[in-house]
Order: sequence, then C-alpha cells, then structure tokens
Amino acid sequence: MPDHRKSSKQPGEFELIARLCADLPYGSRTVLGPGDDCAIIAPSRRLQLFTIDSMVEGVHFNLDWLSPQALGARALTVNLSDIAAMGGVPRTCLVNLGIRQGLSSAFFLRLYRGLASAARAVNVDVVGGNITRSAQLTVTIALLGEVAHQALRRDTARVGDDIWVTGTVGDSALGWRIMAGEVKAEGSARRYLIGRFVAPTARLAEGQKLSRIRPAPALIDISDGLLADLGHILERSRVGAELDLGAIPRSRPYLAVAGERMDFALSGGEDYELLFCMRPNHSVQSISRYLGIAVHRIGRIVERQRGLKLRRSDGRLISASGMRGWDQLKGA
Amino acid sequence: MPDHRKSSKQPGEFELIARLCADLPYGSRTVLGPGDDCAIIAPSRRLQLFTIDSMVEGVHFNLDWLSPQALGARALTVNLSDIAAMGGVPRTCLVNLGIRQGLSSAFFLRLYRGLASAARAVNVDVVGGNITRSAQLTVTIALLGEVAHQALRRDTARVGDDIWVTGTVGDSALGWRIMAGEVKAEGSARRYLIGRFVAPTARLAEGQKLSRIRPAPALIDISDGLLADLGHILERSRVGAELDLGAIPRSRPYLAVAGERMDFALSGGEDYELLFCMRPNHSVQSISRYLGIAVHRIGRIVERQRGLKLRRSDGRLISASGMRGWDQLKGA
Repeated sequence: MPDHRKSSKQPGEFELIARLCADLPYGSRTVLGPGDDCAIIAPSRRLQLFTIDSMVEGVHFNLDWLSPQALGARALTVNLSDIAAMGGVPRTCLVNLGIRQGLSSAFFLRLYRGLASAARAVNVDVVGGNITRSAQLTVTIALLGEVAHQALRRDTARVGDDIWVTGTVGDSALGWRIMAGEVKAEGSARRYLIGRFVAPTARLAEGQKLSRIRPAPALIDISDGLLADLGHILERSRVGAELDLGAIPRSRPYLAVAGERMDFALSGGEDYELLFCMRPNHSVQSISRYLGIAVHRIGRIVERQRGLKLRRSDGRLISASGMRGWDQLKGA
Repeated sequence: MPDHRKSSKQPGEFELIARLCADLPYGSRTVLGPGDDCAIIAPSRRLQLFTIDSMVEGVHFNLDWLSPQALGARALTVNLSDIAAMGGVPRTCLVNLGIRQGLSSAFFLRLYRGLASAARAVNVDVVGGNITRSAQLTVTIALLGEVAHQALRRDTARVGDDIWVTGTVGDSALGWRIMAGEVKAEGSARRYLIGRFVAPTARLAEGQKLSRIRPAPALIDISDGLLADLGHILERSRVGAELDLGAIPRSRPYLAVAGERMDFALSGGEDYELLFCMRPNHSVQSISRYLGIAVHRIGRIVERQRGLKLRRSDGRLISASGMRGWDQLKGA
C-alpha cells in the first residue's frame, strides 16, 4: 500500500530543489526557468527533436562505479547521443529525479553539478524538473533539440550503401565487465576502458557534420550494441547487411584485455559511437578528415532477404541471427 | 551490483514497444513518431511550455486502486494539469516506462490504451518514449505545450488581489484515505470521492480562458494541497494571504464523509483544481459564467509580512505556518 501521498515528497524537498535549481544553467532561449508549473521556452523556427531516457540504479549503473558528478553528466550524455544520432543540436532539458533513502543532499548537489557542467559544455538549458521518492535512484531526462540541416533517420539505408562506424566499439562493455570483476585488467588499459563506460562522449559535432551530406546518411547511435543497433536500421529500412568482422574497430586497450574476443565489440552497448550508412562514394580518408575523428568502413547494405551476415577473415559468411554465443567468431 | 546491462531491457521488449507504439495517436504536427532515436516535431511559432512528472507505484498509486487504463490516463492528466496551470495548450508527449517483474504485456497494452485515449481527447501526440527495467512500476511523462494567449505564472499575485479556486477541494485526498481504509464511506459518496482520486480532470479549458484576462491572473494547480500550493504563489510573488475558512469549497460527498474536518480540503493534494489570484473587480457570478464551472472566492492577497493566515467563522485570524495538526480548525 502506498504511503500517504504527502510523503511522496520528503521533508525539505522543496528547499533541496530550490538549492539545486539555483545553479542550473539557462540562457536567453528560456523565458521562465525552474519554479513554476512549466518552464517557458522560446518558439522554435526549425523542426524539433524530442527524446527521453532514464538511468536506473542497479540496472544501468552502480554508485560504487560512478561519482555523483559522473552520474549527472552521463544521464545527460545518453540523451545528447540521441540528438547526435539525428544530426541535431540539443537545446533544453528537464530532469526527473527518483530519490531513495540514504542519499544526502550533498550527493544531489554534486549530481546536479555534474549535470549542469555537462549541459553548459553543449549549451543546453536545464529548465526544471521534478523530484519524487523511489526505491532506486533514477535519473530521467527529457531533451529537446533542433534539426540543423536535415534529420538523420534509421529508415533511409539503401542497398549498396557502405556501413561506417566512428571511433571504436566494445570498450564501454569491457569497462563494465572489469568493474563487475568479470574481466581482469590492469593499469592504463583498465583506466581507459572503465573511463569509456563512466564518461562516454556524445558525437554531437560529428552527427551535425554528417547531416550536411546528401543524400542523408541513415544513422543510429550505438547504445544497445553494434549488431542490435545495426538491426534497428535494417528493420526500419527493410534491408540486409554484410559486416566484415576484421574491419570492426577495436581500441588498443580492448585488444590488450580481450584479445581476439569479438563479443564485446559486436554486442556490448553504450559506446555512443555513430553507426551510419552512405552511398559508396566516400573514402575512409575523406570522411575521417571531414569528421576530424577516426572512422571505419565495416560493411555494406544488401537486399533484405539476405539478412544480417558477418564475413570472417577466411571469407566465410555466417548468419548473425542464428548465432548462439560467440564460439563461431573466435579467431575470426 | 547491477545486472548485465543487456538485461536492462527484457527479452521481447522491442516487440512490446513496437506493439504499444503502433496504436499511439499522433497527427500532422508530428513529422516522425516512435521508432527512431528522437521524435521529430513541427516548429512552434508560439512560446512553448515544457514539463515532466512521474507516478511511482507504492508512492503515488497502488495497482489495487487503479486499473491499468486509469493509470495511463492519470499519468497524462497530472502533466496536462501543469499545462493548464500556465493557461496553455498541450501538444506532444513522450512516455518513460519503468517496468517491474510480474506485469504482463496485456497490462501494458491496457495502460497505453488508457494513455492514448486520454491523449486523443485533448489532441496530444504521443510521439515515443523509452522502456527500462525497474523495481517499481513508474510512468514518467514529458509534455510540451504552447502558450495560447499569455502564460499564467506563480509570481504575479499582488496585494489586494482576490484568491479564487475552481470546483471543490479535498475530495481526492479523501478518496485516497477511503481506499486505504483510513476513512469509512459508503455508496455514492464513496464512489464519487474515489473517482476524484482515480480519474481527476485537468482544467485545460478553464486555464486557457483565464489566460485571456488582463492583467494575467497568478495561477497554480492544486497538486500538493490548497495551503501548500497557495504557499508557492505567495513565495514566488513575495506576498501574504488571508483565507476565509468558511469559503473553502467542499463537495456534498466531502461534507457527508468528513463533516466539519477541514484538513483534507486544506492539505489534501491532487485535486488538480485551479487556484488563482486576480484584481478585485470580478464577481463570483461573472467568473463562474465565463469559465462554465463553479468557482469560489476564498480570500485575498495581503502584504508579505502578514504571512498566510486563516480567518475562522468567529472572525479570529490564525496562522497557517504555526499550525500543528488541525485541532484549531475544528468547528471553524
């Protein structure tokens, strides 16, 4: 049975919200910030992007692994990445906090400080939010953005497109396993991989640059894992794909810790790199130079009925859909 | 320690989301609905309103008390009420669902059906959302709206204003106590009071009408309770108030069940009626006729240093801030 409704707000909560909100950054786009029933924000002349995402303690994170500042920043970053994945510019957000027993107001001040600093870095206004009691610490952010040039969608991949990915994949999943004690790692490789989980980067500038290319690339951010997120593009675009296993980019620390194991790179999520499909008239050099970061061409879009296949180094094609475990991939 | 990140999504969850989203209503304001990294929505020529609110199982509701449809509708209504409290028009929402073990996909289909139907009734587009695992069922909605005429804020009450409230107050709190077994009630009074908790109404049309009055009324919706929400207006407007206890509107079922007890009416929340302050040149008849519902003049705004006081029927003024319990109010 629920507690009495008044206790859905903890004593002193309004004072806490007021203190937290006082420091939140917002600028001239915001007509009225925190403290009323709604925030009031300026009209938008452009198409708007709207997304929501949630981080739940014990599901997405553990307080032993993340400082409150890192948690606040990361909760915004996972939302920023959804805007990046549309080629958009983030503008305005609201924060819904589920607060459990045992966390001090100093904890929340630090969490908001991390969030505010991440927001300031990308010129996002934090215009208010809501606080409720909860069994698990939960940070839910709703984020509004704008389309800068053209929106990059999941449903525009075409047969013959090349498939590209920014940066490297699997680092964040590996960092998670290291913190969980499932994988052993030492020194700088350990620090690098954990850092990729704790403080990922949303590829905002890269998404915006890709949105200038015509025809518009099909694009998604890698939050669920390379294969799963490519699967979303294939499903929405009604196409298939062939990936070259050897071309999937893995970092030096990944190779040092995981060796030839491909499962983290293929199925580990939360890298927040961009996966995109473009007409096959771009070179690795030109795209890398244009984006200012390393990109890799990892495969191509094929007819839908061919499904999603992985090409091993010996040239054999294996089906991703029928895969159970990763034994077939060893030494690929 | 968190479970492996992949299990933050339950098996088959994407299929569930897809099924749930297929039926969600959206119209021509929405360029791209559910299924991509963000929804894409039309530019807004007017000032925009942005709000977020959350309903947490065991804190705000209990599944014994609410059908899944009623829960879906109510989660939207509490957000709609925030738009009503600014005199705005609701437009577009996103839904973040925290899903616990033990609830079937049929349950969620019914929840979404309730939400979709409530959204359709007020022409709100449900353009997507997010689903995560959670210990408690949680429905968080982020809602965008527009300012129709002028925004009604909390910080514009002035000394000499009359204080008004729509409808009656305390019914929802009493309904809650009846369901919790703390208060006894039978028959139609019981049904009415429980219904006011289960299926509250957001006063959208009334808020929009009030936003045409100049100067703009100071306005808030009653979610925390009459005294607490009036307190928010007083704090933001830097004024005090005197309330006439005998003028606080209570419904017939309230009087039948709670008699002379004023505590539900003064401190019970979630009525979602509108509390507003206007220049003292309006009659009860004219405002009731204009809004098409009953309104009551319950007090007036005074200088800040006089604080918040309640006038009993014997003419004595008592301070709301020093009140402990409600003994002083008995027979007021």
